[in-house]
Amino acid sequence: MVFHLRMEFQLHPRLAAGGFELGRADGCRVLLKNQASFPWILIVPELADGIEDLHQLDEGRFAEVVGLVRRVSLFVADYFRPEKLNVGCIGNMVRQMHIHVVGRHSDDPAWPGTVWAYEGKSAYAPEAVEEIRVAAREYLGLE
Amino acid sequence: MVFHLRMEFQLHPRLAAGGFELGRADGCRVLLKNQASFPWILIVPELADGIEDLHQLDEGRFAEVVGLVRRVSLFVADYFRPEKLNVGCIGNMVRQMHIHVVGRHSDDPAWPGTVWAYEGKSAYAPEAVEEIRVAAREYLGLE
Repeated sequence: MVFHLRMEFQLHPRLAAGGFELGRADGCRVLLKNQASFPWILIVPELADGIEDLHQLDEGRFAEVVGLVRRVSLFVADYFRPEKLNVGCIGNMVRQMHIHVVGRHSDDPAWPGTVWAYEGKSAYAPEAVEEIRVAAREYLGLE
Repeated sequence: MVFHLRMEFQLHPRLAAGGFELGRADGCRVLLKNQASFPWILIVPELADGIEDLHQLDEGRFAEVVGLVRRVSLFVADYFRPEKLNVGCIGNMVRQMHIHVVGRHSDDPAWPGTVWAYEGKSAYAPEAVEEIRVAAREYLGLE
């Protein structure tokens, strides 16, 4: 029991502070980044510490995680209708593995650069978050 | 025959000009980006025009492409021994789908930023490219 508690997955405080949890699927947390300039979802696999990169996952877990990346990408494409998706697993600063799925438009404030180099901030209104949460939970079957 | 020739995959000129072809696997071209500051591989699936994002691939082709991303990541990790990998499918400027697999070190010139925001250039010596080509072809079983 103590062992179980020590192994429990903890979302990195910077990821938790920067977004809103939408739910859970395929052993991953799904978050909406609090950056209303772009539809930006984070997928955070519930992993033991020390696994930072996708290739470190065994083949089965890799397939499960990238399968969720695909489903989240379809959600972002269908719900937000962006012109382009940007998908990345970077994690140079926050080492807890997280995969970005970002919808991009040629008139968004970071275009054609990446969102990771963009320093502007635009917080969501609570009701906008709730609307996206409802849609994402339905589309993705989130717990 | 004419139809076949018209459908033939053509590597985007900017991708071709910016790197060295290492070989081909799983219906993808594998390139080394000509940027010696980072071990940086590009995977370019041989797709029809108009498919720009990973989620637009059907499930089988998606699995094939991300399987190669995993194998290339293992190659970069094993051969270059980076501290961290950065993997991304962005394509805001060159729309032909290409997936970046980049090895990162905390003392590389772009750290902790992304390589996509880095404007420095460092060309490879031809013999360094050849060494990496031989290793990649062997590790990945490239055609």
